[in-house]
Amino acid sequence: MTTATVINSEFDQAIALEPDPDGAGRYLGELGAGWQIGGGINGGLLLAVAANALRRELPGHPDPLSISCYYLSTSGPGPLSVRTETVRRGRTLSNATASLYQWGPDGAEVERLRVLAGYGDLAALAGEVHTSATAPELPPVEQCIGIEHAPPGLLQQAALLERFDLRLDPGTVGWAVGQPARQGRIQGWFKLADGREPDPLSLLLVADALPPVTFDLGLPGWAPTIELTVHLRALPAPGWLRVSHATRNLAGGHFEEDCEIWDSAGRLVAQSRQLARAPRAQV
Amino acid sequence: MTTATVINSEFDQAIALEPDPDGAGRYLGELGAGWQIGGGINGGLLLAVAANALRRELPGHPDPLSISCYYLSTSGPGPLSVRTETVRRGRTLSNATASLYQWGPDGAEVERLRVLAGYGDLAALAGEVHTSATAPELPPVEQCIGIEHAPPGLLQQAALLERFDLRLDPGTVGWAVGQPARQGRIQGWFKLADGREPDPLSLLLVADALPPVTFDLGLPGWAPTIELTVHLRALPAPGWLRVSHATRNLAGGHFEEDCEIWDSAGRLVAQSRQLARAPRAQV
Repeated sequence: MTTATVINSEFDQAIALEPDPDGAGRYLGELGAGWQIGGGINGGLLLAVAANALRRELPGHPDPLSISCYYLSTSGPGPLSVRTETVRRGRTLSNATASLYQWGPDGAEVERLRVLAGYGDLAALAGEVHTSATAPELPPVEQCIGIEHAPPGLLQQAALLERFDLRLDPGTVGWAVGQPARQGRIQGWFKLADGREPDPLSLLLVADALPPVTFDLGLPGWAPTIELTVHLRALPAPGWLRVSHATRNLAGGHFEEDCEIWDSAGRLVAQSRQLARAPRAQV
Repeated sequence: MTTATVINSEFDQAIALEPDPDGAGRYLGELGAGWQIGGGINGGLLLAVAANALRRELPGHPDPLSISCYYLSTSGPGPLSVRTETVRRGRTLSNATASLYQWGPDGAEVERLRVLAGYGDLAALAGEVHTSATAPELPPVEQCIGIEHAPPGLLQQAALLERFDLRLDPGTVGWAVGQPARQGRIQGWFKLADGREPDPLSLLLVADALPPVTFDLGLPGWAPTIELTVHLRALPAPGWLRVSHATRNLAGGHFEEDCEIWDSAGRLVAQSRQLARAPRAQV
């Protein structure tokens, strides 16, 4: 099911699950501190964990063609439980839900997120493509800005970034030096730091991997995701991914963040949109 | 909760629900034949019915800020049942799920769709807007193309269209006379035919009201929705809505359809994206 070339990659370890002896369709896992960002575990990683559980429940339909995640409470490092429900088994498409839980100080279960998805087999889809979408224009990787140049304050809050080889377009990182372009766009090249190649589950992480696009609007601070839906459109080729995050409308304290992920073969492999709470405006 | 100016509008009747004596959080309703399109009930109307049930379950949070719907089987005219589950009650945001059922020939329940949503109060959101989005440029209403000019074959399959006062941009209706613009775009002016003014629930219908954008790609035929997520961004002002449907990537037999709805005050009041199955290509 995976094109990973690295055995026991950080990502595969992070989303690893074992069946919960307490019941069918239930799994146990662990969230690592290395995936924290702004005080919680990255929402894309959490989605990948839930998606990994659903993959196991839907044999023959390994890939989330569309997956929607609603975030309910802030996750932290430690044990987790995923409960799945298969809603419909179809020939080419199956639907299922998943809930990811952790345990509160009192030992009570707390639901972190709820997922609803449609799974199929990307490898079995017809190949024809009719697209007017164009990949983000990026300078060569070596001319882009690596994480090592990120403000120390940012890295302290984002152990997550150490898992990535993220090279941001210099034209969209002005915010890092107090000069946001205010275009509502952040884009760059993405790889997992340990060289693990992209697959449908890792693309769920990538869809939420870049800094909040509100940074580019001059709004530092984290932007909690209310809802994230990812459409997987094709199996990704190995190599660098081109990723763009863009927003066009911040209103009522909310903004949408549209993400596109393009693979090294020049295919649009994933599209996502999330609705998030905007950080407070700076005075 | 509604800004409707028409009492007992067709839309309000179509989404009307009564509590199901069989259990808390359950409702009963009826799907009318007048909302059929291409052999099923319009997906946007079905979503509005489920959303209406959730609104009743979440006092103080009347509006779906984000709502995701996965379509499971084809709905038809007749009785329906909605079952809701409140997932989380928050101060400004609550989450809930809904399932819409009908009954099969054997009397067994068949789930038509599953919804997952985050509800809040649009009227309570801060007013500031920072947007780079621009409303679709449309000729004046009187210069756009009304439904009365639609091909008879289309109208026969789409009783739904009689519920609308839909005026399409002449530049995006070439498909109706065999000359699709192949831009992946259909846009126009929208009102409910009986004059009922827009509100958050009717915007869910509008998000799926235009003909499939694949018509403009030279692909006639209906495009079954796999998943539809709508973000409501502001309360709509009364009057004409400007609606655009666009797609940028048709691949593997699937395409995304992005919809924007702008109100008469020039505000982007809703954004939606659906993943749908493309009609077979014409030879």
